[in-house]
Amino acid sequence: MSKFTVKVPASTSNLGPGFDVIGLALNLYNQYTFELLNKPGSELEYSSNVSPNEVPYSKDNLVYRAFDYLFRKESKETPSIKIHFAADIPTTGGFGSSSTAILAGLMAANKIMGEPYDKSKVLKIGTQLDGHPDNITPAMLGGLIVCVYADAQHHYVQLPWDQNLFFVAITPDFKVPTADARAVLPSQIDFQDAVFNLGYSSLLVAALATKNTNVLKQCFKDRLHQHYRAKLVPGMQYVLDTGVEAGAIGTMLSGAGSTLIAVVDNQKTAETVALAMQSAWIQSNVKCEYRFLRAVDEGASII
Amino acid sequence: MSKFTVKVPASTSNLGPGFDVIGLALNLYNQYTFELLNKPGSELEYSSNVSPNEVPYSKDNLVYRAFDYLFRKESKETPSIKIHFAADIPTTGGFGSSSTAILAGLMAANKIMGEPYDKSKVLKIGTQLDGHPDNITPAMLGGLIVCVYADAQHHYVQLPWDQNLFFVAITPDFKVPTADARAVLPSQIDFQDAVFNLGYSSLLVAALATKNTNVLKQCFKDRLHQHYRAKLVPGMQYVLDTGVEAGAIGTMLSGAGSTLIAVVDNQKTAETVALAMQSAWIQSNVKCEYRFLRAVDEGASII
Repeated sequence: MSKFTVKVPASTSNLGPGFDVIGLALNLYNQYTFELLNKPGSELEYSSNVSPNEVPYSKDNLVYRAFDYLFRKESKETPSIKIHFAADIPTTGGFGSSSTAILAGLMAANKIMGEPYDKSKVLKIGTQLDGHPDNITPAMLGGLIVCVYADAQHHYVQLPWDQNLFFVAITPDFKVPTADARAVLPSQIDFQDAVFNLGYSSLLVAALATKNTNVLKQCFKDRLHQHYRAKLVPGMQYVLDTGVEAGAIGTMLSGAGSTLIAVVDNQKTAETVALAMQSAWIQSNVKCEYRFLRAVDEGASII
Repeated sequence: MSKFTVKVPASTSNLGPGFDVIGLALNLYNQYTFELLNKPGSELEYSSNVSPNEVPYSKDNLVYRAFDYLFRKESKETPSIKIHFAADIPTTGGFGSSSTAILAGLMAANKIMGEPYDKSKVLKIGTQLDGHPDNITPAMLGGLIVCVYADAQHHYVQLPWDQNLFFVAITPDFKVPTADARAVLPSQIDFQDAVFNLGYSSLLVAALATKNTNVLKQCFKDRLHQHYRAKLVPGMQYVLDTGVEAGAIGTMLSGAGSTLIAVVDNQKTAETVALAMQSAWIQSNVKCEYRFLRAVDEGASII
């Protein structure tokens, strides 16, 4: 109890047309180890395999802010704590890394306080802190999630993921801060573009729910966010098109980027797609690495 | 063969947020009886229980235009034909009446020519003629349909409908021409409104696919079309709100209107909702009639 680890999966969100509404947990994890310190006040000892240039080694980092938030919400003094953050998920890479930090901080505080909140309440608080539900919900619950957060209400449905489908995720050596990726989005759009995304996102959910791969192939289309974000991700459209030409079922920007993801249904195609996309990005003078990832049904856990 | 009837179900489309993408076949039918005439040229004898003020008794009506279109497409002379149109579906009422006419004309011509087209091709041609897929697809295939028609491509997924759920449909004594209902929609909208509808439409599909009534109740929200169309449907929002207060799971404009629909899950509530909505509309000086309707799994058929 005085020392434990919160393990939280990565997630990919949007899946093309499903902006802010579809998310999926992946088998790549961040682990946050918490150890209560026998010290007065609210001290923090923080260590990580991530450079302090990326995640501050101070009370400003997200995991501590969420941890502290829950104690304050319960009108309790935040205890002195040692946190070690062991990251496997690239930060600011489009894998919901921030959501893992928020969830870990909340789950740790909740555990230390004797679990005043159940899982759904922790998730609701986390969604409020995160501002968007589509990474934190699959990170908490696992699996494929369709979710809406509006008017302080959080609604979601979990759908089964077709385990024949998995992913090539290709991450460049640059990052796209989520705030920048939101800032490039317009405040007004064409009505027809709204109808286009509404249609393909709804069709995508129906195709996923029925495991209809033929229709699924048609669904990874978007007019709401990806092309606006292309300016932040050099070579993006070329790499996405290359993935489809190489045999992917569909390709997309993962979350707000910078990672690009291809959906595939066999290992041979996955390897062809990975090499083709990597090669296309290198042609655009971008260094990148790829991973083969699978959906996971299990969400965040304390181990 | 020289005389037959095409029976086509009504459909409701949009279901709130799912603008142009979600449709459902209902147990209310139009029947079109075709009889080949032994006359040269391309004569039409037309009769109907619908007034010629509503549907022209001439080659200008939709059923004949679709019938004629398919013969021309096949470079054949359109035969002289007698058509009797027996309508149970209110015209211009938001029940996909036009789609029934297009389908009936195409299916009759296809049958007379010896079925050069299979069902999916007839549906594709019908969608091109109709311009929108969300009434004609469920009218053809039955059931709950999620569909997109874009770039001359027609993609759809059929989902099971929860037979515990049925409808109160309340139709006023005025009509809303679909062209007018489209003309009031803006060319530009707020990005946030697009994301709102995209979210709720996707969540609606997920809730329907998993028969999750608790989430479903939250999904009948829209910012893309209903409030723009309110000016064409006096009292609309008041009647919709009254239906929810009276116990409906959700209420919505059916298609482009003028019918309003409430989703209910038991007959007692259905009756309460029907009377409350009717009374609310009468308070707005609108005469109206209500029907209890159910989803049907069977689409158009030749009998």
